[in-house]
Amino acid sequence: MEPRLQHFEAVVRESFARQTFMATLGATLARVAPGEVDIALPFRADLVQQNGALHAGVLASIADSACGYAALTLMPEGSNVLSVEFKLNLLAPATAASFLARARVLRSGGTLTVCTADVLAGETLVATMLGTMIRR
Amino acid sequence: MEPRLQHFEAVVRESFARQTFMATLGATLARVAPGEVDIALPFRADLVQQNGALHAGVLASIADSACGYAALTLMPEGSNVLSVEFKLNLLAPATAASFLARARVLRSGGTLTVCTADVLAGETLVATMLGTMIRR
Amino acid sequence: MEPRLQHFEAVVRESFARQTFMATLGATLARVAPGEVDIALPFRADLVQQNGALHAGVLASIADSACGYAALTLMPEGSNVLSVEFKLNLLAPATAASFLARARVLRSGGTLTVCTADVLAGETLVATMLGTMIRR
Amino acid sequence: MEPRLQHFEAVVRESFARQTFMATLGATLARVAPGEVDIALPFRADLVQQNGALHAGVLASIADSACGYAALTLMPEGSNVLSVEFKLNLLAPATAASFLARARVLRSGGTLTVCTADVLAGETLVATMLGTMIRR
Repeated sequence: MEPRLQHFEAVVRESFARQTFMATLGATLARVAPGEVDIALPFRADLVQQNGALHAGVLASIADSACGYAALTLMPEGSNVLSVEFKLNLLAPATAASFLARARVLRSGGTLTVCTADVLAGETLVATMLGTMIRR
Repeated sequence: MEPRLQHFEAVVRESFARQTFMATLGATLARVAPGEVDIALPFRADLVQQNGALHAGVLASIADSACGYAALTLMPEGSNVLSVEFKLNLLAPATAASFLARARVLRSGGTLTVCTADVLAGETLVATMLGTMIRR
Repeated sequence: MEPRLQHFEAVVRESFARQTFMATLGATLARVAPGEVDIALPFRADLVQQNGALHAGVLASIADSACGYAALTLMPEGSNVLSVEFKLNLLAPATAASFLARARVLRSGGTLTVCTADVLAGETLVATMLGTMIRR
Repeated sequence: MEPRLQHFEAVVRESFARQTFMATLGATLARVAPGEVDIALPFRADLVQQNGALHAGVLASIADSACGYAALTLMPEGSNVLSVEFKLNLLAPATAASFLARARVLRSGGTLTVCTADVLAGETLVATMLGTMIRR
């Protein structure tokens, strides 16, 4: 896929840095490529649900940001990206030491971008997202 | 709807207290009724996305917990509830001072429970969720 | 909700008549109001899945059209409406004699409209949809 | 993936033949492999929405059946498969001469199976589904 943003990685990193919630979670941008973004998250005991696994909302958060930034890499200069909606399926308990949300763009349009993201613990698929992003 | 759990509110409150992520977000259980749970969340500057609104993942988190506990109120004694999947639509920027995720059960089955949740800022519908919970 | 289309019902009925698939299913427009559309469908033995209930895709079809036309009633003159995405939860076997897909708009924006639809068999909630429509 | 059903293809074909709605649409089983099923559908003028493209519900129908049967190939003898829920994103107008819904299992559990399906027109991704199936 062809990035329309020059310096797309710098644009993504600058926006990510403004997402204070990513810092609150301890999430970091692991990879930025045209149409593809990975976000890394170490396990932390203050991010869990009642059984001690990462809360589904934490997985949704990193998958959603990864989708948004994967979309942003393909948008024109000056774009802002917002989530329209996403769906997340939980596939395995999120009890590993670290997680990677790996997003990629399925279709990049003028207004809407459709993305998918897998949340992985090593080779294990912990959750998967299908979502829609909008350019503003 | 008829709660099958005796002391359903105590059961929900005990489980919610084990969700450390809810405390990390500053979310509290505002109401527990049979098939209906509300979770309150004040705005905080460390929970935002790049434009200063609450991150969609924060909204997903409180809506998901509200759905899970709404489902749990109708499950038999000793049940654990897990999210199978959820979909969240974002409807308005989450920039208010406080938010309420209001969940209710649409259908409670032996294994699966289908729930919906609205995230409200006062009268404004900020986000809406449709999700599936499973009893374990 | 305020219809922006004059003659919104005529516009919806004219577009519905061009959806040949609705005729193929035997579906009819039962009600058109600002932000709300109902589509009726009698059971037919050639619309079923392997157990003799209406196929989930049939329920999705009438719920999706109902959502699209509920959205269209609130769009400006000359708009075309397309589905961006939808999610459908199946809640009960669709084995009744007739069904009603009842859609309403949750939020009508300049570009996107978010809708929900229930598919009912009498009082029974058979399926529920949450979807996003776009104006073209 | 390991099929638990002996004669899994025969089981799928027998069940598919009972889905009268597939015949009504003109859909056929194009491929049955462990955890993967393809369904083919030629364009037909009586399956369209208001602009002459295949109705989103038609795409949902073949994607849903493909997901269900992909799930069934990995279930034990005597299983019945039902859709719990699915989400479909529409990516391109469905105006080609023929379509293929290509489903694969992401995770096969004792009760629930999570599947994804792409609806393709040649190389073009027309729609994509993420859904949950249940064994009965």
